[in-house]
Amino acid sequence: MTIQMIILNGGSSSGKSGIVRCLQDVLPDPWLAFGCDSFVDAMPARMQAADEGISIGADGEVSVGAEFRALEAAWTEGIVAMARAGARIIVDDVFLGAAASQQRWQKALDGLPVLWVGVRCESAVAAGREIARGDRARGMAESQADLVHEDVYYDLEVDTTHTESLLCARAIATHVD
Amino acid sequence: MTIQMIILNGGSSSGKSGIVRCLQDVLPDPWLAFGCDSFVDAMPARMQAADEGISIGADGEVSVGAEFRALEAAWTEGIVAMARAGARIIVDDVFLGAAASQQRWQKALDGLPVLWVGVRCESAVAAGREIARGDRARGMAESQADLVHEDVYYDLEVDTTHTESLLCARAIATHVD
Amino acid sequence: MTIQMIILNGGSSSGKSGIVRCLQDVLPDPWLAFGCDSFVDAMPARMQAADEGISIGADGEVSVGAEFRALEAAWTEGIVAMARAGARIIVDDVFLGAAASQQRWQKALDGLPVLWVGVRCESAVAAGREIARGDRARGMAESQADLVHEDVYYDLEVDTTHTESLLCARAIATHVD
Amino acid sequence: MTIQMIILNGGSSSGKSGIVRCLQDVLPDPWLAFGCDSFVDAMPARMQAADEGISIGADGEVSVGAEFRALEAAWTEGIVAMARAGARIIVDDVFLGAAASQQRWQKALDGLPVLWVGVRCESAVAAGREIARGDRARGMAESQADLVHEDVYYDLEVDTTHTESLLCARAIATHVD
Repeated sequence: MTIQMIILNGGSSSGKSGIVRCLQDVLPDPWLAFGCDSFVDAMPARMQAADEGISIGADGEVSVGAEFRALEAAWTEGIVAMARAGARIIVDDVFLGAAASQQRWQKALDGLPVLWVGVRCESAVAAGREIARGDRARGMAESQADLVHEDVYYDLEVDTTHTESLLCARAIATHVD
Repeated sequence: MTIQMIILNGGSSSGKSGIVRCLQDVLPDPWLAFGCDSFVDAMPARMQAADEGISIGADGEVSVGAEFRALEAAWTEGIVAMARAGARIIVDDVFLGAAASQQRWQKALDGLPVLWVGVRCESAVAAGREIARGDRARGMAESQADLVHEDVYYDLEVDTTHTESLLCARAIATHVD
Repeated sequence: MTIQMIILNGGSSSGKSGIVRCLQDVLPDPWLAFGCDSFVDAMPARMQAADEGISIGADGEVSVGAEFRALEAAWTEGIVAMARAGARIIVDDVFLGAAASQQRWQKALDGLPVLWVGVRCESAVAAGREIARGDRARGMAESQADLVHEDVYYDLEVDTTHTESLLCARAIATHVD
Repeated sequence: MTIQMIILNGGSSSGKSGIVRCLQDVLPDPWLAFGCDSFVDAMPARMQAADEGISIGADGEVSVGAEFRALEAAWTEGIVAMARAGARIIVDDVFLGAAASQQRWQKALDGLPVLWVGVRCESAVAAGREIARGDRARGMAESQADLVHEDVYYDLEVDTTHTESLLCARAIATHVD
C-alpha cells in the first residue's frame, strides 16, 4: 500500500510548516504541500474577521462559520482528488474540531491510504515561538496545543519541543515507502 | 447554467491578481482563488530552478519540465473537483502553452460550465509594472504578453493597460449569474 | 547643488512604493529606499493597535500616539544622517500631519538639499487599488488622499491616476542631475 | 551608563530575528529593530546578484562589492544617529568581516554605549533550520556559523542550539538597565 498523502495535525506554532518544507526536501519524489494557511489565503479578504468566515478572538481563539465550513469541505474533496489523480500530497492542518476534523478528511479520503502524523509541542514552548514569529495573534498556540489532538488517531507522532524540524521530517519519511 | 468557475489567463504582470482580489470583493458569494503562483508555492523548493521543475532564463523566459507537468495535471483535476464539490472557484493562470494549456483545463472540466477571461496588457506597460513590483524576473512580462493568448477562446477579455482592476472585475462580474 | 534625498509624500495606495522601485531602477547611481512602512515594521509588534503606537480605525483612519511620534523623530534624524554620510536616499512617507509633517523633515534636514515630490491619485481610483492590493485596511486610501497634501510644498507633483509608475519615476529622475 | 543600543551578531539561520522580536516583547520600553535584511531590502533590486552589490554563490557564500560597502557605512552612521537622537535600537547583523565588521560599528558608535551579543548555533542545526525556513540560499548557515564570530568581542553570548529564542531574549534583557 503506497502512501500518497501525509496529513499533519498540530496547533498553531507547533512547527508544522518547517516540518513540511523539510519533508519536501528529504523525500526523493516531489510532494505538493497544502494546508489551512493556503486555504485561508484563498478565501475572500472579507471572510477574515467575519461571522460567516474565520475570526480570531482577543485570546487567540479561532472561530469559523458556516460558509467557512462549506468551502472547507469542497477544498478537502479537491485536495484528495489531486492525490487520486496521481500527485503526492502533504497537508498541514489544525484540527479545531479534533476527531470530528479527522472524520471530515476520512470521509473525503474514502479509503485512500494516508499517513496520519501528530505534531506536538509543549504549550509554553509553542507560545514562546509565537512571540518569536511575530505574525500570529497572541494566544493561538496555547489555546490549540492540546485541544486539536483529542481522540485523534495517528500513525506516528513527533514532538518539536526538543527535536528539530529536520529530524522530525526524517522520522516521518521512514514511514513513507 | 450557473457559472461555478472563472478562469483568467494573462501574461506575467498583466494584472490578474489584482482583478482576482477585486472579483472576490464585488461578487456577493464567497469565491476561492487559486492560481499558478499558489501552485508553484506548493512545490518543493528544489523544483524551482531545476530541469524537471520550473526555471526562469536570464531573459525572463519560463521553462517547465516533465515532473512539473505531471503535478500540474493532478492539481488541475483537484481544483475542478473543488468546484464539482460545490465551491465557487477563480483561477488565474499563465497559459505558457496557449491553446494547449486551455485544452488541459477543458479536459479536466469535462463540461463543467466556466467563464473564460483573457487579461490583456500592452507589453511595454506590463514591463513597466514588472519593474514597479520589483519581485519578478525581468523580461517575463514582455515574453508572455502575446504568446499566452494565441488561439485561446474567451467569453470576454479585459485590458488593464488603461482600465483599473476594479472596473475589469465589475465587467467580469456581470457575466456571473 | 546635488540632490542627495528625494522625499515622496502621498496617501495610502497612491502608488508611492511602485514609483520608488522604478526610481531605483532608472537612476544610474544606487539609492537606498526607506519609508513609513519600513519604519512601522521596525517597531515592536505591541505598538501596532495601541494607544501609544499606531492604530487603524474601522474607517481606515490612522492614529499615532506620543511614543510613535518620539521614535519617528529619532528615525527621521537617522535617515537624514545616512544622507549626510554620503548615501543617496529616497523616502516615501504619508504626511498625516500635512505641512507639520513636512516641517519635521525640514528641521532634521537643516538645509540639506532635497527634492520634494507630491504623489497624487484620485480618491476613487486609490480606493479601488486598495481593494486590488488586498493587504490594507479599507478606507485608508480615501481618508488620506487629499488630507496629506494640504499646504505642503513640492518641487514637482506626479499623478498616478492615469500615469504609470515608471513614467512618474522618469519625470522625477529628470530633476535629479 | 544606560544601554541605548543592542547589536546581535550571528550567522544566517542562527535565530537572530526570532530573538529580536522576543526582545521587543520582553523589554518594557519600545525598541526599534533594524538589521542586514532590512538594509538589503532598501537597496535597488539590481544590486542583488551584482558585482558591486551583494551576490550569493552556489555554495551559499555571500560576496559584497564596493558600492555595497559604501552604502553600508552610511547606513551604519544613520542607525547610530537614531540612537543618539534618543531611540532605543536593536541591530541584528552578520559580521561577514568578523572583527573588521565590529570595528566599522565601533567607529560609528564613537563611544556610545552598546551591548554586544553573540548569537551562536551549531552549524548542523542551523543548516537544518535553513531547510525548514525554505527562503534562504542553501549553504549560507554552514558557511557563516563560525566565521562571523572570529575575534569578535561580546558582552554576552547566547546559543540557540538548545535554547528557545524567548529564553535567549530574557537573558539578554537582564543586561539592559
